[in-house]
Amino acid sequence: MGEITHVSPLAPAGFPDLPEIEGVEFAAVEAGVKYQNRKDVTLMRLVEGSSLAGVFTKSATRSAAVLDCQEKIGAPSSEGAAIIVNSGNANAFTGRNGMESVAAVTNAVGECLGLPASRVFSSSTGVIGEALPHDRIISKVSEACEALSTSGIRDAAEGIRTTDTFAKGAGSTIEIDGKPVKIAGIAKGSGMIAPDMATMLVYIFTDAQVEQPLLQKVLSELTDQTFNNITVDSDTSTSDTLLLGATGTSGVEITEDNSVFRDALRDVMLDLAHQVVKDGEGATKFVEVAVTGAASDEDARVHALAIANSPLVKTAVAGEDPNWGRVVMAIGKSGAAADRDLLSIRFGDILVAENGWVSPTYSEEAGASYMKAQELAINVDLGLGDGASTVWTCDLTHCYITINADYRS
Amino acid sequence: MGEITHVSPLAPAGFPDLPEIEGVEFAAVEAGVKYQNRKDVTLMRLVEGSSLAGVFTKSATRSAAVLDCQEKIGAPSSEGAAIIVNSGNANAFTGRNGMESVAAVTNAVGECLGLPASRVFSSSTGVIGEALPHDRIISKVSEACEALSTSGIRDAAEGIRTTDTFAKGAGSTIEIDGKPVKIAGIAKGSGMIAPDMATMLVYIFTDAQVEQPLLQKVLSELTDQTFNNITVDSDTSTSDTLLLGATGTSGVEITEDNSVFRDALRDVMLDLAHQVVKDGEGATKFVEVAVTGAASDEDARVHALAIANSPLVKTAVAGEDPNWGRVVMAIGKSGAAADRDLLSIRFGDILVAENGWVSPTYSEEAGASYMKAQELAINVDLGLGDGASTVWTCDLTHCYITINADYRS
Repeated sequence: MGEITHVSPLAPAGFPDLPEIEGVEFAAVEAGVKYQNRKDVTLMRLVEGSSLAGVFTKSATRSAAVLDCQEKIGAPSSEGAAIIVNSGNANAFTGRNGMESVAAVTNAVGECLGLPASRVFSSSTGVIGEALPHDRIISKVSEACEALSTSGIRDAAEGIRTTDTFAKGAGSTIEIDGKPVKIAGIAKGSGMIAPDMATMLVYIFTDAQVEQPLLQKVLSELTDQTFNNITVDSDTSTSDTLLLGATGTSGVEITEDNSVFRDALRDVMLDLAHQVVKDGEGATKFVEVAVTGAASDEDARVHALAIANSPLVKTAVAGEDPNWGRVVMAIGKSGAAADRDLLSIRFGDILVAENGWVSPTYSEEAGASYMKAQELAINVDLGLGDGASTVWTCDLTHCYITINADYRS
Repeated sequence: MGEITHVSPLAPAGFPDLPEIEGVEFAAVEAGVKYQNRKDVTLMRLVEGSSLAGVFTKSATRSAAVLDCQEKIGAPSSEGAAIIVNSGNANAFTGRNGMESVAAVTNAVGECLGLPASRVFSSSTGVIGEALPHDRIISKVSEACEALSTSGIRDAAEGIRTTDTFAKGAGSTIEIDGKPVKIAGIAKGSGMIAPDMATMLVYIFTDAQVEQPLLQKVLSELTDQTFNNITVDSDTSTSDTLLLGATGTSGVEITEDNSVFRDALRDVMLDLAHQVVKDGEGATKFVEVAVTGAASDEDARVHALAIANSPLVKTAVAGEDPNWGRVVMAIGKSGAAADRDLLSIRFGDILVAENGWVSPTYSEEAGASYMKAQELAINVDLGLGDGASTVWTCDLTHCYITINADYRS
């Protein structure tokens, strides 16, 4: 009880085989920003002609790197791009020095790769409020540039980790117009995870050709269905960044209504989002909360998040206690429309409660048996309308306390 | 780590000596509603001519007893009143049976005390979703009626406990127009505590004479400064009830602008509210979060609650880690107006951060030393306006997980 397990029990069997994306290279090096003896600076390069889109934390105290990315992301360019990420230090709430560090790092990368600093994006993740030792990063930039390789994506996934217990990757190869189109992405994140976005860094690449405005539109829409519907602890970070790069090297151009591309991209994003939840600090259970029959989609999301963020629901899940009364409580407190006598609650397929009370067909034994599974579904129908929303979360365990009462993040 | 301590380390030295209120009697009996071998049914009687005011949970799934109280509370009456409380079962989300149980219990009390059921109020606290075994309560009503005594308030405070680790009472005797006026109250609550109101039952009595509409107005206003500004775990219960009875037996009539009475009542309410936080499940630290300089009072409250409810702030407090970066994070995520470069953060009197970064005068040693205290103050000034709000919370510990991963509430 309370010990930090080496790898989340919800981790996938291993890092997936990801398709190599022509025109995207990766490298990770040891700079000793905070962690010693591990790769903590990751460099990614996109070929000339690539489009880049991004979504970012909405925190009012967002980090210098996020502010810098937001300033650069929309500008049209065909010069290629680079992304540099350090772990161990968030460079957030570091005053004017924060922006100076970002400028120093992005300038160094630009010089090394022959790019203007306006095409170098950066992310920092780790402790808030400590000056970024950017000299340590800059001294390793040329080593990173030399190590760039199209096969380095797993190194990159390792390099961006902080408290993550496993490296996260997801990919897909689809066929469009008879040609293969590849998507591959990596993510980090395990605590301070909540809409909007969480301490989460995500980098996804495709060899499709997509104009920047369309790439941004698709990314924003799909984020609302994926990364914005996960929550570990309701806390939102100052550093959340999701960048999506499209190289065009497949020769396949994507237009507005290409559902094959959109669906494949959504699947990769959802896979990564679920992996972040499965690495939720201390998580032992993965929980899908699906709310239907709400007065509106937004109401459904409010209810789903109230359930998913409730410490009492999350501790009940940790204790394998089919405590549906706490689900009722969470619905009641959410503030969105609900009628006690119209709502129904299911754990998986088991009808637990309806007509304002426990279902006559429900048995505590069936509920208790269901709760022993590692992946759980809490399904609520409000009986009011057509609004629906699904969010994903994990349980709240002793290990979360152990990690966060000690780790300085 | 994780064991349930017998009594909260934040508990007061003992139950206070409370003034006896003429015209208010108390009794507690063992009915075995759920708990065995402890008093679990509490009866309180108010003399003829008493006024009664109440505030209740806003949960959309509130309990049958709350719905019944809300229906009865505003009706003018000079017939006296009774309050009956059971612990162990919340009679919430129990369908139509729930209202039938309330009617059965309040009718039985009314018959025993010669009161119409419309003047018998009830509360139930404990497990949600299980039928209230009201026959067990009814079979003990006459025993409770016979045991009524003006000196029984401590028994009542014991009888309403569920997971509370100590009985909670507060009182005051003031002088108005040369005559003594007494106030005495009891409370229960330790988990599922959040605005609005939490799993909290509070009963306060005074021998002042106050017309019902004024009593209700004062109670509602003071609740917003006291019980609605505490949070243990952000979860709101289906059963929260605060009743305030004024017997008039002191012969002192209170009018609208009596600040002596209002201040004394506020002090009693705040004392009880703080005791609820100090009995927060697993609490080892009591934390005051005071936000000033916000764009509005409401913005200040949003920021204060974002800090007080943040699992990452609460675990840092548990770990005695002066992790002010998490306070920055919580301000950033709250959604209310903030400017990174204008806000300042103090732990007690220690200036921690200002001008968008750690203060040059701050030392980690001073912060770490401060965090070892049992009572802490996190003070944030936003530098934007005159809005202010103060809320109170506790830390998030292993013991909270232990209690809530096992206890069926």
